[in-house]
Amino acid sequence: MSTERTEIEKLGEFGLINHLTENFEIQNVSTVLSIGDDAAVIDHFGKQTVITTDLLIEGVHFDLMYTPLKHLGYKAVIVNLSDIYAMNAQPTQITMSIAFSNRFSLEALNEFYDGVHHACELYGVDLIGGDTSTSQKGFIISVTAIGEVSPDKYVKRSTAESGDLICVSGDLGGAFLGLTLMEREKQIFLENPQVQPTLENEDYIVGRLLRPEARKDILDILEQQEILPTSMMDVSDGLSSDVLHLCKQSNLGCRIYEDKIPIHEDTKAAAFKFGLDPTVCALNGGEDYELLFTMKQSDYDKITLQEEISVIGYMCDADEGTKIITKGKNVFDITAQGWNAFGNKA
Amino acid sequence: MSTERTEIEKLGEFGLINHLTENFEIQNVSTVLSIGDDAAVIDHFGKQTVITTDLLIEGVHFDLMYTPLKHLGYKAVIVNLSDIYAMNAQPTQITMSIAFSNRFSLEALNEFYDGVHHACELYGVDLIGGDTSTSQKGFIISVTAIGEVSPDKYVKRSTAESGDLICVSGDLGGAFLGLTLMEREKQIFLENPQVQPTLENEDYIVGRLLRPEARKDILDILEQQEILPTSMMDVSDGLSSDVLHLCKQSNLGCRIYEDKIPIHEDTKAAAFKFGLDPTVCALNGGEDYELLFTMKQSDYDKITLQEEISVIGYMCDADEGTKIITKGKNVFDITAQGWNAFGNKA
Repeated sequence: MSTERTEIEKLGEFGLINHLTENFEIQNVSTVLSIGDDAAVIDHFGKQTVITTDLLIEGVHFDLMYTPLKHLGYKAVIVNLSDIYAMNAQPTQITMSIAFSNRFSLEALNEFYDGVHHACELYGVDLIGGDTSTSQKGFIISVTAIGEVSPDKYVKRSTAESGDLICVSGDLGGAFLGLTLMEREKQIFLENPQVQPTLENEDYIVGRLLRPEARKDILDILEQQEILPTSMMDVSDGLSSDVLHLCKQSNLGCRIYEDKIPIHEDTKAAAFKFGLDPTVCALNGGEDYELLFTMKQSDYDKITLQEEISVIGYMCDADEGTKIITKGKNVFDITAQGWNAFGNKA
Repeated sequence: MSTERTEIEKLGEFGLINHLTENFEIQNVSTVLSIGDDAAVIDHFGKQTVITTDLLIEGVHFDLMYTPLKHLGYKAVIVNLSDIYAMNAQPTQITMSIAFSNRFSLEALNEFYDGVHHACELYGVDLIGGDTSTSQKGFIISVTAIGEVSPDKYVKRSTAESGDLICVSGDLGGAFLGLTLMEREKQIFLENPQVQPTLENEDYIVGRLLRPEARKDILDILEQQEILPTSMMDVSDGLSSDVLHLCKQSNLGCRIYEDKIPIHEDTKAAAFKFGLDPTVCALNGGEDYELLFTMKQSDYDKITLQEEISVIGYMCDADEGTKIITKGKNVFDITAQGWNAFGNKA
């Protein structure tokens, strides 16, 4: 962060919005009218519009002690785009509202919006509106993402069928281990501010926490391979919790194979360092923002060469239960122990 | 509010969302997919989509000491619908995200959602998504409203022309006097909790503050009379500030006549009681959520019988300035002294 400090009052609300958004250029023809009026206007030219929204609160969803504001701005966009991709849709616009206490300087907000801008550019989405205000405490972020999809090509959570293969993109558990590491370093720092953090060889898991990506590339692969998933969602609460959502909403059971769950070598190494089981981290850790989807068995041959997609199990009838088969061939019920904003286990 | 208290943890996040939204019925055919997936899907069938969003923070935008939660839920929807109407569009869907500290019970959230539900029913909009989480302090509300408009029928702020008439719906200043009254009663209560509030004959101004309406009816009148405003916005920051927005964005000046500004008798009475000038309250008080628009002079005859629309002045060239002509025929520059979340004057 810059060491300069400009007080935000100098700009006023409209001056601030103009300043923060002046270098955002419109990238989509569907963006008919953008920032500066009562509302924005979009035209998806015969496509259906997809909408999702998230509210992120300092101290609940993020910790500014170890989250650079630029990364936070980037991630606030990504987590919403991930929900749009999880509908098999393409994100096209976002609105971004923020509230902040007077400890924030203009330079700090610039950092945040740099991250927002970077995400918008990389994913080709337009910032079309929002709101800025003061808060009594902490930094508050509300993002709404808008996307488009050809009529009836969107993919719900409730349409998997018995026998469908369960697939997941990328690898799981990294963000949770990144969080575990940062929380540990924070405690060490709070107890002894002289100690510098030891983050060598932890780039991967720290990156998974602070700079996640949304899996646009997986939609491209699915389209190239002419695969329409039978159900899909993003992995934000942890694989256990999210697989159970697919099962519940599709009124099915499932079998997951522990040895098929993709876990990065660096995630495994970090888990061992902390004395944690990597599989448990993948099942119960959240914030991976990978895509979890089901597809017909007949599509299996189309993805065998896709390194970014793992088949981890299959859907079955509801009365067969929701179970995981361990490497030792033991069978356990899958229980949702995912991250939950209320602190209890759903 | 009910005297029962149910702890929210018992439900979990998904249980809570299900509980709060279970009696919301879909009213629009454009709502293709609603709450319960990664995102919602809407299909405006060849119309353009209009989007607006607001972030409301306890202690900044509302005070729960005198704002019943049911009214707050209602108003949180209304202020966003008002922005959609101000585009000459019809609202069709909203998303609603809330964050709350553990001092909130399930009964309190039910009250809030009762108000949200009432607004949705009355204005025919569907709640299609949102987010709930905890906050470290206070109640936080983020609403995004989505509407539809026939292609190119939306009305911007920047398209007024010199000579156009400036019109405003309803009457102004009431919400500001309602706020002044409630703040006074709050101070009296804090100093002496035994004193009961004296709100007799103050129904109108208190209602303007706590239960505003969005002016859907004005759009109906304009359509019936075949008037397409040349520019439009809603009056949320105060008439002065908002007229200046129209002028600045349309690159024009204006003349406003003090004696034409519509002020309710009860608003005038309250202003005199507080020793305030009613015109100043109308110019600088915010939150009236009336529609401010310009129209061609040739449309004047169409609205002479419309009691809910007042012509208050006209647009002129930018070099003639932005001025108000008082009842005493004095001419003053209009200055923006509207409500501003940053506490300074823009």
